[in-house]
Amino acid sequence: MNLIIDVGNTRIKIAVFNNAEIIHNEIITTEEFYFKALKLLEVYSCKNAILSSVGNLKKSQINELNSKINLIQLDYISKIPFKNCYKTPKTLGVDRIALVSSAASQFPNKNVLIIDAGTCITYDFINEKGYYLGGAISPGIKMRYQSLHQFTKKLPLLETKQPEGLIGGSTEECIHSGIVNGVINEIDSNIESYRKKNKDLTIVLTGGDVNFLSNRLKNGIFANPNFLLQGLNTILTYNL
Amino acid sequence: MNLIIDVGNTRIKIAVFNNAEIIHNEIITTEEFYFKALKLLEVYSCKNAILSSVGNLKKSQINELNSKINLIQLDYISKIPFKNCYKTPKTLGVDRIALVSSAASQFPNKNVLIIDAGTCITYDFINEKGYYLGGAISPGIKMRYQSLHQFTKKLPLLETKQPEGLIGGSTEECIHSGIVNGVINEIDSNIESYRKKNKDLTIVLTGGDVNFLSNRLKNGIFANPNFLLQGLNTILTYNL
Repeated sequence: MNLIIDVGNTRIKIAVFNNAEIIHNEIITTEEFYFKALKLLEVYSCKNAILSSVGNLKKSQINELNSKINLIQLDYISKIPFKNCYKTPKTLGVDRIALVSSAASQFPNKNVLIIDAGTCITYDFINEKGYYLGGAISPGIKMRYQSLHQFTKKLPLLETKQPEGLIGGSTEECIHSGIVNGVINEIDSNIESYRKKNKDLTIVLTGGDVNFLSNRLKNGIFANPNFLLQGLNTILTYNL
Repeated sequence: MNLIIDVGNTRIKIAVFNNAEIIHNEIITTEEFYFKALKLLEVYSCKNAILSSVGNLKKSQINELNSKINLIQLDYISKIPFKNCYKTPKTLGVDRIALVSSAASQFPNKNVLIIDAGTCITYDFINEKGYYLGGAISPGIKMRYQSLHQFTKKLPLLETKQPEGLIGGSTEECIHSGIVNGVINEIDSNIESYRKKNKDLTIVLTGGDVNFLSNRLKNGIFANPNFLLQGLNTILTYNL
């Protein structure tokens, strides 16, 4: 039994794997972190854990957890199941390391583009030889809504919503059309560009906005909200 | 001689028109505003002025200027040279009113899509009957760079730069690729969608990022950095 903890920019996911199968999975707050982690490792008799964090967690909490269980903290020197060709490995987010590990494990010898639509939208490409080449980072959907409000004097902060069409007929409709259609066009165009250069491309869509986006995108995409957690479980197993 | 003042979210543009021709045009700070405006109206003997503001200017400065010259402050009840079908006219930015006025004046009886790439990217559509139908609003290029830095824990704040290709091989390259290619794909896809629905579409690109973007976009676009100022001059003349 493995305990898997993914601390993102805006939320913490905590899960338990029995070999490759998820048997527990929930989203928790920073405050709940230590209590929930302790409870799960007792309930499921977890022996090993992995922590991936792009956010902030108290070191004291991590140290305490480390004293209770064999805890691997994912960083740029962790052993990984792919060849990392990134020029700045120290600044490669651990979330992206986990996603690429998941692709290397689930789709070996394939060209894979992983799109993670969360706080940011990240694009990561690993080729059929298992070489990770990099990708792209752009603002996530909620971030775009926040930025329009925060960096202008007059635009409102709206909740994410599917636009009704191309032409927004009011300020709110204009914002939904601009942001959501913009993100969909960005993702579709990126897929098209990668497809032109790589035949037999496998495409995975994951992240907090996976359900919101998956119906609007073109066909041939694997939507998998647990792809990052599965990657962390892969890395943990790889490091035991 | 007309004095034209455009207060945007991040900068103030001040210009002098002799009929339809720009004879002075500069970017100034909020602090310089009153002094520069007074100087220009004396040097060029301007009789009429128009002020469009989506930012913040001191009311006292506006009132003082108003005492020296016939000043029209553009708002949602100003007389405009097109039929406004926007459902929320009170929240239609005065910058967008100016852009659509410019289209109505320079391309009468045409379907026109105006793309203003500044603090925000706005899309505005006026049809061949002179009906303004609305459009879309998304975050501008600099705003996307700012938001990636401000709303995450670990991403750096970068200056705008053309990416070298599709796949960013470092964190900085990933950000340039994600943001700049994303914006270009968003704009190209929007143009394509409007073109599908409207034959003989005229497309105008303007705003602070017009030079940065114009080489990367597909053909058939009028790049005009002064389109908004021209629209304000149109409205001023229309209201005399």
